[in-house]
Amino acid sequence: MGEFDLIARYFTRPAARAALGVGDDCALLQPAPSTQMAISSDMLVEGRHFFADVDPVTLGHKALAVNLSDLAACGAKPLAFTLALSLPRVDEAWLAAFSKGLFALADAHGCELVGGDTTQGPLNICITVFGEVPVVGGKSQALLRSGAKPGDDVYVSGTLGDARLALEALRGKLALPPGLLAQARSRLEQPTPRVALGQALRGIASAAIDLSDGLQGDLQHILRASGVGASIDTSVAINLIASSADNTWAAATISSEQQLECVLAGGDDYELAFTAPASAREAVQAAARQAHTAVSRIGVIEAAPGLRLLDAAGKPLERRYVSFDHFA
Amino acid sequence: MGEFDLIARYFTRPAARAALGVGDDCALLQPAPSTQMAISSDMLVEGRHFFADVDPVTLGHKALAVNLSDLAACGAKPLAFTLALSLPRVDEAWLAAFSKGLFALADAHGCELVGGDTTQGPLNICITVFGEVPVVGGKSQALLRSGAKPGDDVYVSGTLGDARLALEALRGKLALPPGLLAQARSRLEQPTPRVALGQALRGIASAAIDLSDGLQGDLQHILRASGVGASIDTSVAINLIASSADNTWAAATISSEQQLECVLAGGDDYELAFTAPASAREAVQAAARQAHTAVSRIGVIEAAPGLRLLDAAGKPLERRYVSFDHFA
Repeated sequence: MGEFDLIARYFTRPAARAALGVGDDCALLQPAPSTQMAISSDMLVEGRHFFADVDPVTLGHKALAVNLSDLAACGAKPLAFTLALSLPRVDEAWLAAFSKGLFALADAHGCELVGGDTTQGPLNICITVFGEVPVVGGKSQALLRSGAKPGDDVYVSGTLGDARLALEALRGKLALPPGLLAQARSRLEQPTPRVALGQALRGIASAAIDLSDGLQGDLQHILRASGVGASIDTSVAINLIASSADNTWAAATISSEQQLECVLAGGDDYELAFTAPASAREAVQAAARQAHTAVSRIGVIEAAPGLRLLDAAGKPLERRYVSFDHFA
Repeated sequence: MGEFDLIARYFTRPAARAALGVGDDCALLQPAPSTQMAISSDMLVEGRHFFADVDPVTLGHKALAVNLSDLAACGAKPLAFTLALSLPRVDEAWLAAFSKGLFALADAHGCELVGGDTTQGPLNICITVFGEVPVVGGKSQALLRSGAKPGDDVYVSGTLGDARLALEALRGKLALPPGLLAQARSRLEQPTPRVALGQALRGIASAAIDLSDGLQGDLQHILRASGVGASIDTSVAINLIASSADNTWAAATISSEQQLECVLAGGDDYELAFTAPASAREAVQAAARQAHTAVSRIGVIEAAPGLRLLDAAGKPLERRYVSFDHFA
């Protein structure tokens, strides 16, 4: 099977909303009037972002999910994406499974594949995603990292830390009960981009980011971009790890210290962290209900720079947690 | 040096026209009214698209050039691009040189870097580029592959085959005189995307494509998309290889058969092949002058499907030429 047959068989479907889809030199998108186009690009490398033997259905899902998560953090509505794929060889079973996982998530979000590239080389998946953000009265409705103000609440969506827990289990560093492993592994391999929540938070949240490298590190991007600091109540945050619900198991297997490390520095969560004025608490909860996504208030933005991790009594923790850095 | 320092030092510059550039979850582009956005994505892999020891300045140039070439084929004006980069390690000298070559070409075309991704892994460069095409009276001015009609002339821009000649020389398969090697090598490593020509051909050309895999194969994409065939005069096409000007050398070193192979199936030319009605010959030449780019008329579109390679007497050639296919 040659390059063009491969594209035709696995990655070509008729253009739905795009003016022109796969098969010409460029795809053509016609943005709606009074909108901005939000763009994000993520590259996934074998051995770095996923194991070589990962189920290709879940890999197809994850490759798009991490990009949709960036659109969510921006409050953008997904429109389309391009896929550039470097493959060691043509493996039709792998391609069928990968494209199945990819298109299932794409269809769920009305996000269509409009173009890309296919080449031979070490397995590498690069997706660039396009979304739409309204411009109202000349003002973009995009959620940025730079809008947090002292006094704002700090929130996160969903649960944190389970992807890291699954990673440790898959590496053989700890044993999880089967039910919990399945749950945690699905969080690692098939993260849920919070697309509906991001859009529901437009006009409500003052700043937002998606959590890919771990809460502590990613939250600091908001703090630096906004020129503020924050205090986080770790006694609340620790309950965000889903596995903490099973106290019997948790107490017997990993310490609360380790659970907190998963929550703060786990990575691969693809939840949203965001800030909103205290006056918007009801609006935030209404947006969460509308998006069918739980959100938890875990801290407060302060004028003093830096991120302060506090215990239940408001005392600073001594331990530091380090987020993932590809080159550190 | 960590991931974020690397991005800050080598790949962050203030947003010029973009509403939001590098540094948030998404970049934001605000398309002009009555325009479509043309999008293309290309992935370059070490050992496949370039040698491991290639000068990183020229690699930065080429990685963007191949994408700008797709915009050119579409008649789009370059606006912005994203860069996803997988690097085996942080090599500051390499990064400085790569970004120098990249930004020199980007600046020459007013095309700004708005976002991307950086990760560790085998060297892989994925650029997605965005351009603007006007919509006039509800009709897109984009050049497509699908508009060629029987009776249209077939043209190519610039010269063809020299990149392949350089590749053979660098592989030690033939020896080129130093001047010719430098010229051919610059065509291989620093191709010139025909961006001005593509825009000048809007409203004149009936179909267009950029030549990355070789004239014979790429032209057939136009033929299939348009439901037509074509005859090409190979006695004209063979003169498109710049080295043919040096008859003494050429005759002593490679046969005219080999020169024709470079022209028809060489690949990596990044010239435009396009079609236009015979009534537009003066308009085509005016567009070529406006874009300071030579164009040559090499054949004619016909109703009968297939590509016919003819000699000077109009007789079909017996030999076949095969274009590059990543998985063939």
